[in-house]
Amino acid sequence: MTKRAGSAFVIRAAVGGALVLAASSAASAADVVRHPLLGGSTFPIARAVEVPAGKTIIFHSGTTPAPLDPKAELGTPAYWGDTKTQALSAFTRLKESLDTLKLDFGNVVAMTVYLVGDPANGGKMDFTGFMSVYSQFFGTKEQPNLPARSTVQVAALAAPGMLVEIEVQLAK
Amino acid sequence: MTKRAGSAFVIRAAVGGALVLAASSAASAADVVRHPLLGGSTFPIARAVEVPAGKTIIFHSGTTPAPLDPKAELGTPAYWGDTKTQALSAFTRLKESLDTLKLDFGNVVAMTVYLVGDPANGGKMDFTGFMSVYSQFFGTKEQPNLPARSTVQVAALAAPGMLVEIEVQLAK
Amino acid sequence: MTKRAGSAFVIRAAVGGALVLAASSAASAADVVRHPLLGGSTFPIARAVEVPAGKTIIFHSGTTPAPLDPKAELGTPAYWGDTKTQALSAFTRLKESLDTLKLDFGNVVAMTVYLVGDPANGGKMDFTGFMSVYSQFFGTKEQPNLPARSTVQVAALAAPGMLVEIEVQLAK
Repeated sequence: MTKRAGSAFVIRAAVGGALVLAASSAASAADVVRHPLLGGSTFPIARAVEVPAGKTIIFHSGTTPAPLDPKAELGTPAYWGDTKTQALSAFTRLKESLDTLKLDFGNVVAMTVYLVGDPANGGKMDFTGFMSVYSQFFGTKEQPNLPARSTVQVAALAAPGMLVEIEVQLAK
Repeated sequence: MTKRAGSAFVIRAAVGGALVLAASSAASAADVVRHPLLGGSTFPIARAVEVPAGKTIIFHSGTTPAPLDPKAELGTPAYWGDTKTQALSAFTRLKESLDTLKLDFGNVVAMTVYLVGDPANGGKMDFTGFMSVYSQFFGTKEQPNLPARSTVQVAALAAPGMLVEIEVQLAK
Repeated sequence: MTKRAGSAFVIRAAVGGALVLAASSAASAADVVRHPLLGGSTFPIARAVEVPAGKTIIFHSGTTPAPLDPKAELGTPAYWGDTKTQALSAFTRLKESLDTLKLDFGNVVAMTVYLVGDPANGGKMDFTGFMSVYSQFFGTKEQPNLPARSTVQVAALAAPGMLVEIEVQLAK
């Protein structure tokens, strides 16, 4: 009748005035489609992710790390840790949040990564360090789903010394 | 028949071949769900906001302030004002825009706040000043709805001296 | 029955127990609505873009330019080119990507432009140079559709010397 899950229904029978309609549940809505990067790149992000009608879209606030050592001087590298440490903490916190929402990293359709120049990386953002952590959670055998993603180096985040903020949109 | 508003309909009667279908209007689609921050934080943002199928999503351009004193020298703090002044102007302009769209701050599901280092705040973004204005419009008794939000300090915005840009996504 | 495309259907006939339902296809779902800037501004962006229920939303990764001269020293202006050159390359690559997805610039509903300070522009982002390229693709007679947009100057992008990254969301 229609390929759109948003209004998918099927007439099972229409005999003698008796009609049975079977509406699709959200769970069986058309699937999210993830398009790989062009040129055969194996970089673990999707070029584009299609979210069909019928899905719930979840906007998640930016997730920042927990302090590595809350007893260290506020805002210092000892307090927050380097980019890798902060990325691991931020992804761990994001996972905890998604758990409570009955979502997981496989539901992530888009991600914006905000990094700050890392003193431990000559003042430039530690893109490689970030990727080493990201790749533990995305593009693995257990969780192959990849999000569309943008990564930028900003001037600063909410707290001094904070180097990583991860924002995601999800679909279910 | 289904819990999904996107295809919600009800068979009112199916008698002798006469069938009446009453489809739900968008207004009665499943509601937006706002999840609070974990750990009992009272910081006035949502951790995540779920927009169910059946909603219209509105992408709004970044909103910047109007000049505080258009006669002052272009790009100076006198021209644009400090972070608080600019935030108030930006939210006021955003409200004017939403008014014409028959939307209000309660429809905002996600917000990205771009701040620039404020000369009046030692060259750092004035997060506290921004929050004092934000909190007049979000998380109040009159408007309790909170958006998912990310806030970053960028290097600059479209015009020199501009310190605040607010981007929102909304649902209705 | 309903103005919502997400569940739009029409009873064509209901005679003697025989019922024919014609569901709308996604293609005929309610249209995207683009609201112009207030005050009669002719700046070629939309103030807000409404994506009604029933649409597929596509999240596209940030698109960066190809090197202008891959033989030049990595990260230099000769390698990447200036803002205009990079913007043209990034939009060209984005168009190639959209072609494979059977989308075009007319499907873009939102855009975030990340620019980096351009050495050829006194170290500030070359907003004017970027706009001269953007305006070849958006707001033309052939492609009048305008996206909601935010433009910010960030500290850096993924590679040294890279000055332009364009992120888009689309609807179909």
